[in-house]
Amino acid sequence: MRGLFITMEGGEGVGKSTNLTFLETFLRDNGVDVVCSREPGGTRIGEEIRKLLLQIRQEKVSAMTELLLIFAARAQHVSEFIEPALAMGQVVLCDRFTDATYAYQCGGRGVAWDTVEQLEELVQDKLRPDVTLLLDAPTSVGMSRARGRGELDRFEQEDLDFFERVRGSYLEQAKNDSGRYRLINASVSLDKVQQQLLEVGSELLSRWRERSSES
Amino acid sequence: MRGLFITMEGGEGVGKSTNLTFLETFLRDNGVDVVCSREPGGTRIGEEIRKLLLQIRQEKVSAMTELLLIFAARAQHVSEFIEPALAMGQVVLCDRFTDATYAYQCGGRGVAWDTVEQLEELVQDKLRPDVTLLLDAPTSVGMSRARGRGELDRFEQEDLDFFERVRGSYLEQAKNDSGRYRLINASVSLDKVQQQLLEVGSELLSRWRERSSES
Repeated sequence: MRGLFITMEGGEGVGKSTNLTFLETFLRDNGVDVVCSREPGGTRIGEEIRKLLLQIRQEKVSAMTELLLIFAARAQHVSEFIEPALAMGQVVLCDRFTDATYAYQCGGRGVAWDTVEQLEELVQDKLRPDVTLLLDAPTSVGMSRARGRGELDRFEQEDLDFFERVRGSYLEQAKNDSGRYRLINASVSLDKVQQQLLEVGSELLSRWRERSSES
Repeated sequence: MRGLFITMEGGEGVGKSTNLTFLETFLRDNGVDVVCSREPGGTRIGEEIRKLLLQIRQEKVSAMTELLLIFAARAQHVSEFIEPALAMGQVVLCDRFTDATYAYQCGGRGVAWDTVEQLEELVQDKLRPDVTLLLDAPTSVGMSRARGRGELDRFEQEDLDFFERVRGSYLEQAKNDSGRYRLINASVSLDKVQQQLLEVGSELLSRWRERSSES
């Protein structure tokens, strides 16, 4: 039995970390063999690449350099962590994946969509998430939360306009792939966000139990 | 007037650094505006990526991760250093470029040739070296020189067979692109290597003077 690949997406300050842990706990408490990870990162060299990406730098990093670093980390993550876990039947819960690249690098930075498609195919072959949760909130809400956390990284430093484009791209992707996406309204209270997460969690649980009983 | 893009290629221990400096000095002494660089590296973030690539690591770095890191560094090098220098009319002398990727990653690691071609096009568009010097020596000669230098990096640790494939790929590339390649026998004494370099140096000087007089 092959596991499930679940990704959580969203802009800055929408509460991905908290809610990923919440979903992880729900699944684990229900007997699911779940592992968590994040991008960029998820492996040793991947976390070192993450540092390079998030560091505030004196020089301007070219959009292509940024994009290739993200996919370099992803290549290691896919081959060393995600694929082996799925092959063992685990549920992989990942904080960001390639949809974030479409949102930030295409939407935010203006990289051509088909450039990312090419790299996606090179690095992931047929691997795509089974379900993607998009935590969505107005950009101003997310940004004020992110800024409340303290020092900003290289991405968080971007302006409101950048994050509007990121959000727009995420919403567009969710619309175009509604079978895979679950849109979560993240602008309401944590309690209400988690009610929505429990619905998706229950759905994932059924899918997982179905797969387990088939194998 | 656009400058000239000259690359120096070859396996471990063939004397690229020494001979690059020799060629640089010859050109500079003859009034050429020359700048030197190296790959992977050549920019701040590129040199940090180089460290990631050369470090000996506990985990196995996937061939795709390695390849994308190399092109990430190259993207920054091309846009921040090489293209601006060529646009200013300088001669760029570079210790390794994409032919090394074909030799090490395709020849050495078995990455598909057209994967590198795809990335080459994405990152370099039409940029290709004007002239490439290949310093060639039997693998055993180069390896014993490299090992005499002390601690080995992640590439230098590979076995003889790997370096035979790298050398084979370089020689094949030189054969298939004889208009661009100048084959230098690097197994002879330094004196005799540098006699060969002076011939190529004189040719480069003529091309440079021609371009200067045209503009």
